[in-house]
Parts: sequence; structure tokens; C-alpha cells
Amino acid sequence: MAKITKVSPLAPAAFPDLPVIDGVRFATVAAGVRYQGRTDVMLAVLDPGTAVAGVFTRSATRAAPVLDCQDKIGGPSDGPAAILVNSGNANAFTGQYGRASVEQITAAVAQATGVAQNRVFTSSTGVIGEPLPHDRIVARLDELTAGLRADALEQAARAIMTTDTFPKGASARVEIDGKTVSVAGIAKGSGMIAPDMATMLVYIFTDAKIDQSALQRMLAEQTDRTFNCITVDSDTSTSDSLLLCATGASGVEVTGNADFARALESVMLDLAHQVVKDGEGATKFVEIRVTGAASDADAKVHGMAIANSPLVKTAIAGEDPNWGRVVMAIGKSGAAADRDKLSIRFGDILVAEKGWVSPTYREEDAAAYMKGQELVIAVDLGLGEGKATVWTCDLTHGYIEINADYRS
Amino acid sequence: MAKITKVSPLAPAAFPDLPVIDGVRFATVAAGVRYQGRTDVMLAVLDPGTAVAGVFTRSATRAAPVLDCQDKIGGPSDGPAAILVNSGNANAFTGQYGRASVEQITAAVAQATGVAQNRVFTSSTGVIGEPLPHDRIVARLDELTAGLRADALEQAARAIMTTDTFPKGASARVEIDGKTVSVAGIAKGSGMIAPDMATMLVYIFTDAKIDQSALQRMLAEQTDRTFNCITVDSDTSTSDSLLLCATGASGVEVTGNADFARALESVMLDLAHQVVKDGEGATKFVEIRVTGAASDADAKVHGMAIANSPLVKTAIAGEDPNWGRVVMAIGKSGAAADRDKLSIRFGDILVAEKGWVSPTYREEDAAAYMKGQELVIAVDLGLGEGKATVWTCDLTHGYIEINADYRS
Repeated sequence: MAKITKVSPLAPAAFPDLPVIDGVRFATVAAGVRYQGRTDVMLAVLDPGTAVAGVFTRSATRAAPVLDCQDKIGGPSDGPAAILVNSGNANAFTGQYGRASVEQITAAVAQATGVAQNRVFTSSTGVIGEPLPHDRIVARLDELTAGLRADALEQAARAIMTTDTFPKGASARVEIDGKTVSVAGIAKGSGMIAPDMATMLVYIFTDAKIDQSALQRMLAEQTDRTFNCITVDSDTSTSDSLLLCATGASGVEVTGNADFARALESVMLDLAHQVVKDGEGATKFVEIRVTGAASDADAKVHGMAIANSPLVKTAIAGEDPNWGRVVMAIGKSGAAADRDKLSIRFGDILVAEKGWVSPTYREEDAAAYMKGQELVIAVDLGLGEGKATVWTCDLTHGYIEINADYRS
Repeated sequence: MAKITKVSPLAPAAFPDLPVIDGVRFATVAAGVRYQGRTDVMLAVLDPGTAVAGVFTRSATRAAPVLDCQDKIGGPSDGPAAILVNSGNANAFTGQYGRASVEQITAAVAQATGVAQNRVFTSSTGVIGEPLPHDRIVARLDELTAGLRADALEQAARAIMTTDTFPKGASARVEIDGKTVSVAGIAKGSGMIAPDMATMLVYIFTDAKIDQSALQRMLAEQTDRTFNCITVDSDTSTSDSLLLCATGASGVEVTGNADFARALESVMLDLAHQVVKDGEGATKFVEIRVTGAASDADAKVHGMAIANSPLVKTAIAGEDPNWGRVVMAIGKSGAAADRDKLSIRFGDILVAEKGWVSPTYREEDAAAYMKGQELVIAVDLGLGEGKATVWTCDLTHGYIEINADYRS
């Protein structure tokens, strides 16, 4: 595996201070699954009554832990729950052996923690197609269980990293009926990012009180506006998993509460943006705002066509205001567009309108704008009310360097 | 525009000897549309009775010359016909001005050659969004008309190049009823290649006799198996055009003739492969054979998902037999797949089967295979009889270099 030593230029200055979420404790260990000299397994144990919701990759070649999680989501919520995650090996495309590894790990976690096996959720991330050395994980479970602490979410964020150049965390607090409800989450992901759900691992915890089916509905809706609106390279992982756990420890019921929904969305969006900012080789963070489309669905198709276009992404890497490539991407997307009704803006600069370059456009203004680290490309299709915003990064030599010898 | 000085390592040793096609003559000139010191306009004039068939980009932001050609294809075929092509400027997204340029050029060609304006077809290729200096072309039409020659197809191939690193030509001869029918074609294209028809400019000439509607049907069918099965970067041009002209000079009627269809397909496939071999930054030519899919359409979806995956393409660039990324691409494609029925071969090497790496697989064999310049990745889905073959190239630093400052 390639050593990635440089931190993304788009990384936040520091890992954020995350609130402690009552009802969940964490532990990490260096089990040597693949990496040496760093933590690579994290265990979270959740108090009885925690509702666990999840969304997962739609890949037809999903990994064994994903299939196991999908079976378990929506089951009884009374007892405690546990999440075990390893990095370094995805346990994907490993046939019968992969299923056996999940069985071994979940049984051992159940025994070590007292959690029922059908409430033990696992994820694995890393290389595809190699057998997961699950014995190395099982051997450390007693140590993990003994080390569980409420304030170890940052350590958990570090243990699940693969090619990530920084750990990713985000949180929000919301006052409801005079009481504070907290949400805190962590994520990993930097390549194979084109969510057809959420192309990465994400774990979000809250002390809100909400039943599982309401939590699941809220999660699905928010995922469509957050993790499903980012792309690094248009490639969808076999392992993407997002688990959202509500311990209920605050005693505050949040079903249907709009303030809580907004707080959750802000945490999800923050984590999603951090994944893009750690996109392999990324040097620019790009927001693509599409308005005036025939429908919201069309707007997203256009946005993703722009965000995934190698020609657009390389132009951004080269700080070239090559709006012709934006026109090209809209044209190829397959969604409704009328060349002569389009307008395109880079930041506040009106670049093109009415089928041609704007009379007010000056290339030097756009070239100066493109030197920024965070860019907005806005497209109005002039057709209707449909809108969508998606986020991506540029395509640089760094992406080629990282991926031309990831396994070597 | 970036200076591309190195010829693709996948280029053929030399431009092929192309047969003279009776009934068509060519001329080229250096009009200084954008480039200096090289030819950039080609004119072809076709004898009366020539049938002209065409297929064009399906982009919603098609260029003005494409829209004009589409209007004209299928009209009366009795008189002579003409094709004028310029490189350096695509006359795309140029609004009313773009339409006016096409009108000016086609009117001037009609006057200089005596061809009816509704039989004058034009294409433009190069930068998007800048006005085409059509006066520079119009000023040279008399010179072009005076210089028409039957044996100048190679010069025509050179005049239409943009970022191409070599001119592309191919031909075939077929004996029908004791007479020889010839087919010869030229193409340009190396980036913005993901045909939603044929993402490039292609001109094919034959002395076969066939009526326009039969020629158009044959062309549409062959395009689906040739140019629509290649991709360099998943980006679809606003200008793609393929014109197929049958002069009838051989006197041999070919409607419904399978030998002629095969000859035409061989020329189209050869040109399509040359476009991939000149893919921006390409160092490997990759054939992806998909079999056992639920349908031919599903097979093509899987093939294109593999061919367009940046992670697969960078692994190939790095000579890394990273078959896990092939599994990922199949999983994300959206077409039917069953992880445990898949098999994957690199050349003759069985890599994976039954949901896991094959017991006979040795990484060193596959690593040695990946060092080759022409690679075959074969996927059998184990579901049905659907099959498709598509062609692509690797994704290298060269692609980033070429596209991060194409306009600068």
C-alpha cells in the first residue's frame, strides 16, 4: 500500500472538539490487520435501548460485513449494541471465507461484550479480495472491551483511516424543550468515492431519543442531500456503510423535530465535505450549484456530470476557467438542457449566457478566481425550478500517484 | 493550447497506404484558424450521385456545424457533395454567431465548387466557445478548389488533427461479383472521447453503389459495435461527426451485401482503435470482453463501467493487476451481477471465480502480464448470453498534463 505522508491542503487546521455522547463508549487497538505501528480496529458499545439506523452501498458486489449489517438493521432495539470496524482489509470479494470471518468476529464481540450477536455490526475497509485475518482481531477483544471510554471518538476516527490524510469528525448541539441534545460523528474515505449511497464509512452518535423506524427514515432522507451529493472519482466502493446510533440518554424525544433534523444534517454535510477535502490528490474543493433544471433529479444528473467529468476536474486542477468543458458535461449528461438558455457562473463572475460567452466576461477575472482553494460553479438551465448542489474536488497528478500503485 | 510533441507509444509505425476512392478528391490548406505552421482546413468534393450517411453526437449542447449536418443528411443525393472541415476551433457554444459562420462557409463552398449548399457538410473541431474566424477559411476556398486531388487522403487526415499525436487512416478492399470495392477512412480524436455516438470526427469513403437510406442503416448498426464501444475519458464531445460517403464509382451495388458490411466494419473498428491508441496520455490499449451477462445491453454497461473507472484505469497505468477494482466497477455499474458467479481473466490468466480469487492465481503471473502494451480483461458474469466488447486506454500523468492547461 502506498505511503501517503502529506496531509491534504484542504484539511481542517485541527480535529474538532467533539462532545461526549452519553450511552456510547469506544476503544481502539493496533491489531496488525495489515498496517504496522498504528491503530486499526475500533469497538463501540452502545447502551440498551439504542436505536441503530444504517444506509449502505448499493453495489452489486457488496462486501460480507455490509450484507451482514443490512440483515440486522431494523431488528429489535431493546438490548445493547456494538460496532466493530477494522481498516487495512475490506473483506470484500472473499467468498465463503468472508462470511465466515464476519461470523467469527460478531460471535466473539457478542461473547466479550454481552451484546446479542444480532446487534453486533461490523465494517471492514481496505484492500479487496484478500482474506481478513480475523483471528488478529478476535485475539484483542478482551483488551478492547476493558478499554472502553466515553471520550475516545477521536481515537476511533483515527483507527478507521486507510488512505485518508486526516481524521474526520463533526458535531452539533441543539436545545429542545430546554434540554441539550448532542450529535457527533466520524468518517473515513478519500478514494472510490461516488456514493450510490455513501461511499465510505461513517458513524454518527446522538443521545436523542427516537425509535428506529423514524431514525431510519430521517437518515435516508438526509443521506440523499449530503453523502449522496459528493463525488471524488465516480467509483463506488463495495463497503460503504453509515451507521447512526441514537442512545436516548438525553431523554429528549426528537421524532419529527426539525431542529434535530437540521443538526443531524449539518453533521452529515460537514463529514461529507471533509471526505471530499481528503479526496485522493485533491487541491481544490468545488461546489456545483445547479438551478433552473426541469426537475431536482435532472439538476442532480447535471451536477454529477460536471463533478465527475475528468476534463472539468483537470481544468480546475490547472486553474483554467475552461467553461467550454462545463457546457460539454451538461450536454452529455442525458438530462434536459437547452444550449441557448444556459447560464454559467464561476463564483460571482457571469461566464456564459444565451448560448455564448457573456459580453461582460473577462478571462483574467475568471483566471484569478480559479486560483482560490474553494470554488463555486453555478449553472442555471433556464428551464424550470429543479435544483441540486453537489461537491467534488479536482483531478491531479496526486490521484494518479496514489492509485497507480496502491497495492504495490 | 498545449504543445503535444511526443507521439503516442501505441501509434502505428506509419500511416497506412490508402487506396484511391474513385469519385472523391481532397485538398488541404494552412488557413491559420488557430494553429500556425500546419494545415488546418480540408475540403473533399464528391461526384454527383454520392450517397452521404452520417451519425452525430447526442450531446444536448451540439455545435452549430453538427446541427447543420443533421438537417442535411437524408436529403436528395443526385448532385455532387462537399465536406469542409477545420481544426483549431469547434464553433461550439457560439450562439447566433456560430450559425452565421456555418452559413457563410457553406455558401462560399457552394459558390467555389458548384455544389448545392444543401449538399455542403461542415465540421469544426478545437476550442469551444470562441468565434470561428470563418473569413480565414472563406478566403482560401478558390485555392482549395484548384488543388483538389484524388490521392490526398493522408494530407486530409493531418489537417483535421487537434491534440492527436498521429494521423489516423484505415482501409479495406472487398471483391464482389468479380469487381473490387474499396473503403478508406480517416479520423481524428484523442480526448473528450466517450462516444454517445462517435466522439470525434470520422470521414469514410467508398466507391460502392448503395442508396442513402440503406447506407444510413448500415452505418448506424456498425457505429454501435465500433465507435460507440470506445472510451478514453467518459467525456462526450459537442462536435462528434461521422460521415460515410458512397460515390458508386465502382458500379457495384452493395445493399444488403455482408462482405461489404464486414469490410466497412473493419475500417470503422480500425479507426476507432486508433482513436483509443491516441487517447490523451495513453500508454496501454485495453480490450474489455464481457460475456455471460443477462443481456447485450447489460454487458455493455458493465464493459463501459470498467473502461471508464478511474481506479481501474490508474491501476492499468501502474501495471497493477488490481482485479478488486474490476469487481468494484461491475458492482457499481447498475447492471445485473452476482458476486459469486463472476469470473475475471487478465489475458489467459484466471484471476477470480466463485466470488473470490482463483486457487490457481499467482500474482506474479498477472503482474508480468500487465507489463504488456495491449491487454485483455475478460469478465464472465455467469448469468446469461449477453456479451459486448469495449476498448479503452489507461489513465496516466500524461492525461493530467495535457488537460490541466489545454487552453493556456
